[in-house]
Amino acid sequence: MKTAYFYHAGCPVCVSAEQQFLSALNPAEYEVKVVHLGDSPELIAEAEKSGVISVPALVIEGNVFHINFGASIEDVKAA
Amino acid sequence: MKTAYFYHAGCPVCVSAEQQFLSALNPAEYEVKVVHLGDSPELIAEAEKSGVISVPALVIEGNVFHINFGASIEDVKAA
Repeated sequence: MKTAYFYHAGCPVCVSAEQQFLSALNPAEYEVKVVHLGDSPELIAEAEKSGVISVPALVIEGNVFHINFGASIEDVKAA
Repeated sequence: MKTAYFYHAGCPVCVSAEQQFLSALNPAEYEVKVVHLGDSPELIAEAEKSGVISVPALVIEGNVFHINFGASIEDVKAA
């Protein structure tokens, strides 16, 4: 089982992507960890280290997929 | 079985997203149709109608997910 990290910040674009998109992932292969960076600002550094520059973003095995655009990491930091 | 459309234009960002990302989708639920808009420009109008404004993009049940950024539809038209 691989872990997919879904970083978001509670914005409407993020929530929409989360519900519609995560359900399309293969449940036999991926465990999805949803990380709300607004609620867990201590995880912002980890997200940035993974290459996340905006949310929502999905990180799978070191690869970052920025899905649509909700907010930049800088905006999340400032919130 | 639902159909997921992956629109791309052969750019490096598109190819990378295609290989890494499509393999994460649930094969029990989605059949993926890969559409190369550079090779099939007659399908650009269909992509735009679905709401695609840049590639690579994934369209699932009427919802558009722009994944990272390879090129705008306008750039694809001009190519």
